[in-house]
Amino acid sequence: MTKTPLKAAVLGASGYTGAETVRLLRNHPRVDAVAATGNALAGKTLSEIFPYFSGADNLNVVKADDVRWDDIDVAFGCLPHGTSQDLIETLPEHVKVVDLSADYRFRDAKIYSAAYGREHLSPERTASAVYGLSELYAEQLSGAGLVACPGCYPTAALLVLLPLMKPLLIDTNTIIIDAKTGASGAGRGLKEGNLFCEVSEGVHAYGVGTHRHTPEIEQELRLRSGDDSVEVTFTPHLLPMTRGELVTCHVRGDADAIHAALEKTYSGQPFVDVLPLGSPPPDTRHVRGTNQCRIAVFPDRASGRVVILGVIDNLVKGSSGQAIQNFNLMMGWDQALGLDVLLPLFP
Amino acid sequence: MTKTPLKAAVLGASGYTGAETVRLLRNHPRVDAVAATGNALAGKTLSEIFPYFSGADNLNVVKADDVRWDDIDVAFGCLPHGTSQDLIETLPEHVKVVDLSADYRFRDAKIYSAAYGREHLSPERTASAVYGLSELYAEQLSGAGLVACPGCYPTAALLVLLPLMKPLLIDTNTIIIDAKTGASGAGRGLKEGNLFCEVSEGVHAYGVGTHRHTPEIEQELRLRSGDDSVEVTFTPHLLPMTRGELVTCHVRGDADAIHAALEKTYSGQPFVDVLPLGSPPPDTRHVRGTNQCRIAVFPDRASGRVVILGVIDNLVKGSSGQAIQNFNLMMGWDQALGLDVLLPLFP
Amino acid sequence: MTKTPLKAAVLGASGYTGAETVRLLRNHPRVDAVAATGNALAGKTLSEIFPYFSGADNLNVVKADDVRWDDIDVAFGCLPHGTSQDLIETLPEHVKVVDLSADYRFRDAKIYSAAYGREHLSPERTASAVYGLSELYAEQLSGAGLVACPGCYPTAALLVLLPLMKPLLIDTNTIIIDAKTGASGAGRGLKEGNLFCEVSEGVHAYGVGTHRHTPEIEQELRLRSGDDSVEVTFTPHLLPMTRGELVTCHVRGDADAIHAALEKTYSGQPFVDVLPLGSPPPDTRHVRGTNQCRIAVFPDRASGRVVILGVIDNLVKGSSGQAIQNFNLMMGWDQALGLDVLLPLFP
Amino acid sequence: MTKTPLKAAVLGASGYTGAETVRLLRNHPRVDAVAATGNALAGKTLSEIFPYFSGADNLNVVKADDVRWDDIDVAFGCLPHGTSQDLIETLPEHVKVVDLSADYRFRDAKIYSAAYGREHLSPERTASAVYGLSELYAEQLSGAGLVACPGCYPTAALLVLLPLMKPLLIDTNTIIIDAKTGASGAGRGLKEGNLFCEVSEGVHAYGVGTHRHTPEIEQELRLRSGDDSVEVTFTPHLLPMTRGELVTCHVRGDADAIHAALEKTYSGQPFVDVLPLGSPPPDTRHVRGTNQCRIAVFPDRASGRVVILGVIDNLVKGSSGQAIQNFNLMMGWDQALGLDVLLPLFP
Repeated sequence: MTKTPLKAAVLGASGYTGAETVRLLRNHPRVDAVAATGNALAGKTLSEIFPYFSGADNLNVVKADDVRWDDIDVAFGCLPHGTSQDLIETLPEHVKVVDLSADYRFRDAKIYSAAYGREHLSPERTASAVYGLSELYAEQLSGAGLVACPGCYPTAALLVLLPLMKPLLIDTNTIIIDAKTGASGAGRGLKEGNLFCEVSEGVHAYGVGTHRHTPEIEQELRLRSGDDSVEVTFTPHLLPMTRGELVTCHVRGDADAIHAALEKTYSGQPFVDVLPLGSPPPDTRHVRGTNQCRIAVFPDRASGRVVILGVIDNLVKGSSGQAIQNFNLMMGWDQALGLDVLLPLFP
Repeated sequence: MTKTPLKAAVLGASGYTGAETVRLLRNHPRVDAVAATGNALAGKTLSEIFPYFSGADNLNVVKADDVRWDDIDVAFGCLPHGTSQDLIETLPEHVKVVDLSADYRFRDAKIYSAAYGREHLSPERTASAVYGLSELYAEQLSGAGLVACPGCYPTAALLVLLPLMKPLLIDTNTIIIDAKTGASGAGRGLKEGNLFCEVSEGVHAYGVGTHRHTPEIEQELRLRSGDDSVEVTFTPHLLPMTRGELVTCHVRGDADAIHAALEKTYSGQPFVDVLPLGSPPPDTRHVRGTNQCRIAVFPDRASGRVVILGVIDNLVKGSSGQAIQNFNLMMGWDQALGLDVLLPLFP
Repeated sequence: MTKTPLKAAVLGASGYTGAETVRLLRNHPRVDAVAATGNALAGKTLSEIFPYFSGADNLNVVKADDVRWDDIDVAFGCLPHGTSQDLIETLPEHVKVVDLSADYRFRDAKIYSAAYGREHLSPERTASAVYGLSELYAEQLSGAGLVACPGCYPTAALLVLLPLMKPLLIDTNTIIIDAKTGASGAGRGLKEGNLFCEVSEGVHAYGVGTHRHTPEIEQELRLRSGDDSVEVTFTPHLLPMTRGELVTCHVRGDADAIHAALEKTYSGQPFVDVLPLGSPPPDTRHVRGTNQCRIAVFPDRASGRVVILGVIDNLVKGSSGQAIQNFNLMMGWDQALGLDVLLPLFP
Repeated sequence: MTKTPLKAAVLGASGYTGAETVRLLRNHPRVDAVAATGNALAGKTLSEIFPYFSGADNLNVVKADDVRWDDIDVAFGCLPHGTSQDLIETLPEHVKVVDLSADYRFRDAKIYSAAYGREHLSPERTASAVYGLSELYAEQLSGAGLVACPGCYPTAALLVLLPLMKPLLIDTNTIIIDAKTGASGAGRGLKEGNLFCEVSEGVHAYGVGTHRHTPEIEQELRLRSGDDSVEVTFTPHLLPMTRGELVTCHVRGDADAIHAALEKTYSGQPFVDVLPLGSPPPDTRHVRGTNQCRIAVFPDRASGRVVILGVIDNLVKGSSGQAIQNFNLMMGWDQALGLDVLLPLFP
């Protein structure tokens, strides 16, 4: 570690994923967060915005225009959908970009527009960006200049389902993803639905039948399987907890074959554990605070049906952790740099 | 209300459903809880076991043998599966029984034995007991002597699905019930999995592919549809909250027809609300502390698929509240007696 | 109850205390909530704002100007401090007012102004308003036209401390009130500090050394004791829960004498329980959803020191419940009307 | 880091503090956890007991008799009070001991016996053990063979109060410590009071006037001040959260002098932050998962009174983290080894 660390700017450091990116980079041996941008909160230090940062970690949050981009090697985009491309399209070419928003996730800008309600500034760039599901696109990530990190739900759902697409091990006509998340997935926005009193002691589904992560998941399943008719039902639920995401995937296929395919795909991967058949179901709290994904396969009582469970920490593997893992892969480094010191926080 | 109230014994008053039954009877105009049984805690008063009861509400918890059964009109069975029938089979004939355990839910004692791991003491009585899903078996409940209240999950799942069985509105071969519950459903038992530190800030599935509520749900769906091949996938999840249960039912059919059938079935029913199409998803906290069930129907993006949501308070409509509603129906009273004063506790 | 119910308007029905007032009045035999006001949300129904209300309970939320005041007997003021007097001062004289804000709590408008940062519109009315701590001012409440309900913290603190002021049983120079509250006390305002992710899994003090409830508590202690030098240290803490408030009062005196005085004061009172010496400490969850206050007295290991604990539900006894109790007393009714059906929600 | 790591045994690895010690040692560059003991769970692997450990971290839990003590350099005692000394007194002399129980915290075994209800096996060893409050006893820790780590509450309380004892800056006759903790402080024991349903959505005090941490705190305050009459009121409360501890210390003195003394004491210390006067109150979630203590001083509105707040993570600085910090000091290493990679987990 005698080399000079690269310099990172975190765009949108006043939200949860921005702050998490800064936090995780603190332990990265080859990258330093040297700039943090924000609009409304520009002028404050990071520890004024998030007091859990101590004085020692402080960065001044500045407007994006005030960053000296010549000094920056990589930008982590932690801005809302839409806002993200507005800034990213203005960055100098030498800056590598790892974007956590939805803006570059779609190969087809029209699908993006339909789901997110705005024209894309650069349909070409979104078409050629690498979809940063680290374990499954490692090769494409190597040397990439613009990476679009998957949404938190697609991360968990695709780690479970993509390896079953080729060879095809499940019925593509009956895939149901029933997902559960903690409140941090909704970000730091001031909405009544995010208030403690409206989240604790209750559960509800949202975006039923219409959630924007559905076309993202379908894009990847279709690409991998080569079958453009693949459809999924995706139903997310908000739970009274902060971190953690569980996807319960209801599929038709053979449990043993599915388990074998998942084990083979993730053999040797440091951040995806496929539990042995017969293990107790994984729990989001077993991966809290880490970049880990745990997957378990269960044959159902009803013949031919299989339940596959996947758990992640939505702010780490589901966003900032995977972003850093992607950057490691872009640079040709060990993908675990800066991430392997993370311990699950239990209880 | 000038008539003398009937006298109730609550069997197993030291668990959550037992205590909830006592609590709810406090506001019942025609039934008084006059006896409470318990084994380990016999000799204590109810407010020593559950300090939320005030001195004014106190009952002495006694062993079942010490109850003067001649004075008792009705027994609410709040004992664990197995233990319940051991006591109920010894009760004098004049005592009406509303049992909250699984012991009398199965028409076929062999299915009970397979699911609960013991022989049934009285296969004939379980065959003839009324299955107490209040809204759908009101006629059979009238005048009944032994009623088996549904499990909390079956209550919510069947209120959603039974009306779709005849005429058949959904594909019986692809029913998936993805269920979510708070920790009170697991009772007051001392297990590591029930500790605060092991429930808060996390979610996990349990009983995946094997849960005992599956055959109970299937029994009713088959009876109603007349189709013995109906199978369901039932996957429950434990959430970091105390009360509340949500069933997310993934089915194939026509959303409008499904909604119409549900609306028709529950029209005029005080305790089941079918929300208008297009309403926001119901939340368990909207029914907390009440005997209410709320149901909403959503067409999925994928054609021909429908998501139906049902929420209840597992300790009220899912157990003690429905038990009292059943007793009201057994006696030919207004089914809402003692239950219509319950207000949802929000926030 | 054959008499025509009185008609109530709830001012500020889109906040938690407003909604709670409507909710509690639903069970009141002699008062109906017939009007609900709100500004930003005028035009919506109550169940659109708070879906836990069912269609049956619906009220249209209107601007205050659109209420037909001639038909209204009583207004429950659930508006923020400052806004409340602006409206109340415009109401016709025949409307009785029970105000839950701080606007009429201070006999001396200057103390109000210092604490709340604005001039009072009517120093005379605030000087003559009755301070609605129900149990201790029942006589003054009878027939009153304007009642100022105490803050939630002062309610709990004063129920504990006022009876010790005359005869004086504690050292007035060393009173410390260390208070703990759930998040609903902060209302439905959109602030980062109220977000689920910023409240759960943590605790912090706020308003340390400066909280506005301190002068309110001191006003009452001074009035009762006749000693204008009484000072208290009041330190509130925000806890990761929704409802419930605990005051831990550290005083110097004799535990037995203190306990006897409290027992005597509240003997026969339906809503204040003084636990026997030696009881386990009371818990906020033992009174959740009710108008109850529970008090317990503990001698400390250090001689001459006593710890007195008081718990309430901040939205019921700490606001809407006590408001209704006060109105019952104003009308000369049984103070428990509409409130005695509330059962503690446990677990 | 080319040296061979020392070998640690963790005694009582099936409880929360035992598991936390193993977890934290995973990142320690100079110590490896090579043995884990347990009685009831001997024969299982650590990841069977705590699934958050992955297969890679696995240790077999064995009975203490089956540890090859010749290979062990240090034992971290994570056993319950009483049980701990029974085992520690049998260990070979070459094994350094860092005990997290109360067994060696008291210089005077009689005080231990009075508080913990049993005779001490070795009054001499408890008299000479070093009290492991790292920042304040660093000198004594260097080279020590047996260290008794403070209780979680005493850690937070003494970090706040000890620096005010010499020179004496506060009135020793009016110290009140009102403490709040999450449920993990109660351990993994199966008691109704630890169940999710009995901890969530409520707060209560416990051990009021009698808690065993009181004599421990007094021992240290008396030693430092030289005044044997120092008494404290210590009142702990259980909060609905897992990790985190806050002490609210109510004292009499001068806020500026107190702040200056604290700042001076902890200047240069990596794990204790004294916030500038006027900062917002610290929150337990700002130090969650870290070995950090944050302290803030507030002058009260009432003259001469001061409120001092201290927050820690009870499982890290309050137990396992401080234990490792102590071992670092015993060995003459940098006290932050293995602990400086811990990031606060927020949100």
